[in-house]
Amino acid sequence: MTDDETTVARLRQVVERFVERRDWHRFHTPKNLAISLAIEAAEVMEHFQWLTPEQSRAVAEQADRRAAVAEELADVLAYLLAMANELGLDLAAAFEAKMAKNEQKYPADQYRGRFGPDDPGSPSTSPGEP
Amino acid sequence: MTDDETTVARLRQVVERFVERRDWHRFHTPKNLAISLAIEAAEVMEHFQWLTPEQSRAVAEQADRRAAVAEELADVLAYLLAMANELGLDLAAAFEAKMAKNEQKYPADQYRGRFGPDDPGSPSTSPGEP
Amino acid sequence: MTDDETTVARLRQVVERFVERRDWHRFHTPKNLAISLAIEAAEVMEHFQWLTPEQSRAVAEQADRRAAVAEELADVLAYLLAMANELGLDLAAAFEAKMAKNEQKYPADQYRGRFGPDDPGSPSTSPGEP
Amino acid sequence: MTDDETTVARLRQVVERFVERRDWHRFHTPKNLAISLAIEAAEVMEHFQWLTPEQSRAVAEQADRRAAVAEELADVLAYLLAMANELGLDLAAAFEAKMAKNEQKYPADQYRGRFGPDDPGSPSTSPGEP
Repeated sequence: MTDDETTVARLRQVVERFVERRDWHRFHTPKNLAISLAIEAAEVMEHFQWLTPEQSRAVAEQADRRAAVAEELADVLAYLLAMANELGLDLAAAFEAKMAKNEQKYPADQYRGRFGPDDPGSPSTSPGEP
Repeated sequence: MTDDETTVARLRQVVERFVERRDWHRFHTPKNLAISLAIEAAEVMEHFQWLTPEQSRAVAEQADRRAAVAEELADVLAYLLAMANELGLDLAAAFEAKMAKNEQKYPADQYRGRFGPDDPGSPSTSPGEP
Repeated sequence: MTDDETTVARLRQVVERFVERRDWHRFHTPKNLAISLAIEAAEVMEHFQWLTPEQSRAVAEQADRRAAVAEELADVLAYLLAMANELGLDLAAAFEAKMAKNEQKYPADQYRGRFGPDDPGSPSTSPGEP
Repeated sequence: MTDDETTVARLRQVVERFVERRDWHRFHTPKNLAISLAIEAAEVMEHFQWLTPEQSRAVAEQADRRAAVAEELADVLAYLLAMANELGLDLAAAFEAKMAKNEQKYPADQYRGRFGPDDPGSPSTSPGEP
């Protein structure tokens, strides 16, 4: 499976089959899945816990570390898909709606190079720019 | 966009374009993205914080609550995709590999109806089953 | 050390000494400590991931499980104290202020037996109570 | 209340009284408290989400930002204390035991200036030090 060729529906199907075969729907309350999602997200963070920003960027060039992170991201993805299955949500549709909302909330011309009103300023910001 | 018709690559493209237009790659260190993923996962959990398992299942039938959860899941997905972009990871491939590993780790015949060795036992488990 | 006899300042001192001896202040940016706090909180959650509410209450009676949870809570506490040290915060004072705020926000007479406006209702709530 | 004068037991008492008056023990399953702890930890992280390590250190000098972080830390502390109450755990004792374990696991002479075997090395580490 590759990102280019795999639909979200196909991924959800793999999770559904896995859960169904093990009769695990009983454990897959949306609450438990939300907890699981958070647990796995923390495991992703653990790979970067003490790294500087630069060291975290370097992970992209370190095959073994990148593979370890990829495995944790796969766990996050699996629980995300499981939640969509339990709640009957279309993830792509929810994503599309939220990105449209983000476009409105963070107009590109106002937010280029800064993450928000609290942004203390970035190195390549023109002098005087708020 | 719907799950049936949308590939992971297409979703990643939407995120990439959004980040690029705002010159936000500077903030998207893998470390910051891992943190963001965890923050959003906690926001998903917040919707279920005090609910009983049954109340959490009922969310699937409550349009407004389900929509609120969908929006948070979309945020988790967006950061997951952003991380894949920054690290150059194929999410579907990582997912496929991890699910194959899970098939080995949790053989369906041994794990039907139970989540692990710590499982104190479920109502429909045959008597005497470990 | 026991809760009855130990002040927050004493606990902070133990953490400070530990960090100082290892020259770890360099890693203890408030950001890294916040991440560490979240990682440990997820490890606490992991002990309850698939348990029902009742099974989670039973942990109080299971010495080995309770000890495992206690160890994770100790980790959360250690990072909380480390953050107070790095930021120069008095935790007891911050706690007192927040509890006073909570007293205002959740008046006891209005919130008896319910956690908020979203509370779908609890078994012992009088009929008709919103 | 100040760190110098306040015992952990006193803090736990304040939480217990707050919970008792509102008849909230019903919601305070250890599982729900673990979830709440993680939610609040994420809210602490949110204050540092996009900051550089240096910007995060600067928070110590910014009264308003530091107060905001203090409030979130107070929330984490409150749930930690609530968990100790529900599980009947002595936090100081658990902390003492864990710090003793950490002393063994991270001998000061081996871990001065480095956080572990994965530590790629810090600027002030002597050349040749592993």
